[in-house]
Amino acid sequence: MLIYQQEVELDTEGHGHMQNLTKLMEELVRKSGVHRGLCSIFNQGSTAAIGAVEFEPGLEKDFPAFLDRLVPPGAGYQHKNNWHDDNGHSHIQASLMGPSLTVPVKDGALALGTYQHIVHLECDIKARKRAIMVTIMGE
Amino acid sequence: MLIYQQEVELDTEGHGHMQNLTKLMEELVRKSGVHRGLCSIFNQGSTAAIGAVEFEPGLEKDFPAFLDRLVPPGAGYQHKNNWHDDNGHSHIQASLMGPSLTVPVKDGALALGTYQHIVHLECDIKARKRAIMVTIMGE
Amino acid sequence: MLIYQQEVELDTEGHGHMQNLTKLMEELVRKSGVHRGLCSIFNQGSTAAIGAVEFEPGLEKDFPAFLDRLVPPGAGYQHKNNWHDDNGHSHIQASLMGPSLTVPVKDGALALGTYQHIVHLECDIKARKRAIMVTIMGE
Repeated sequence: MLIYQQEVELDTEGHGHMQNLTKLMEELVRKSGVHRGLCSIFNQGSTAAIGAVEFEPGLEKDFPAFLDRLVPPGAGYQHKNNWHDDNGHSHIQASLMGPSLTVPVKDGALALGTYQHIVHLECDIKARKRAIMVTIMGE
Repeated sequence: MLIYQQEVELDTEGHGHMQNLTKLMEELVRKSGVHRGLCSIFNQGSTAAIGAVEFEPGLEKDFPAFLDRLVPPGAGYQHKNNWHDDNGHSHIQASLMGPSLTVPVKDGALALGTYQHIVHLECDIKARKRAIMVTIMGE
Repeated sequence: MLIYQQEVELDTEGHGHMQNLTKLMEELVRKSGVHRGLCSIFNQGSTAAIGAVEFEPGLEKDFPAFLDRLVPPGAGYQHKNNWHDDNGHSHIQASLMGPSLTVPVKDGALALGTYQHIVHLECDIKARKRAIMVTIMGE
């Protein structure tokens, strides 16, 4: 049984910035030596999310735009009263999407669909430096 | 430590078709020989989701209907401009729900609540053949 | 390879009651003896959720309030017709959030962000006794 763990640093450009992590995760799976098992990708922090989205220029705009309609910026969140932070919507968007994704590893590669990508979504209101913890377990 | 991995094929009947995978997953857990550990269920593809829903005729309608109110079909998604695809809402619904679920295995069975079921939800606009990757790890 | 599994009982106070499970999960990770691996937290039952939210008094109100705007109580769910249950919205809120979270374990502790907490959210319409299954795997 193998366990491989790697922290990855990621620079984001601010609210709604979506990045395709698939290639990087494939590389880490190769490095791990795991042929069959699971790969967990986890964003450390409460205002960004990890998800599975087809990464193409249309959805790259559609998905963050949808979240902004669903959880609009500046709509009277109590979070502001307590912290004087204008990112109440960032917290709710990120919590709704979730910080993590678990993807199966098969034949030494991620068992994703052809147009299925692992993405990081910045929900906070400014550019951030993010830490992503990747854990790959299997044989 | 045991790792069991099995790809399952699933036929769906089109948008909003929800299927109860619980019985099939219970069978795979028995086959795996794992008594204690985790079972990961993952939909390969970006327009369908795996989730936990009480599978009964009311919620079978309520849940897809809710997603269609939240992310309506044909509401000007950029995805269409790039791909001439009318399934922008399918992508967003599936990404919001997520492609995967991890369920604990205890005493050789899934540790679910009595009315808690593992479901597959087709979000695409037509019937599809789906590949579900099941990975069970433990002892 | 170590596998540690522990069922935790939790009393909730009714709809929208959010509880911070982080400290308890940190304790279980210590007990497990796992230094590197994954910790899965799973709510057994279809009307409560596990998620990652910054646990502070503002978001403690904002997050359940957001879910009630998104999936309002008493808005004509079919679930009621079949079961005479007034908790159709509870099911949809819990299924949308999901029953589980997987968090990496590093150096014998949960690899969370500073303001990132593991929370349990009661979505049902009354106080409940909940069973949470915690599974920690690694070395």
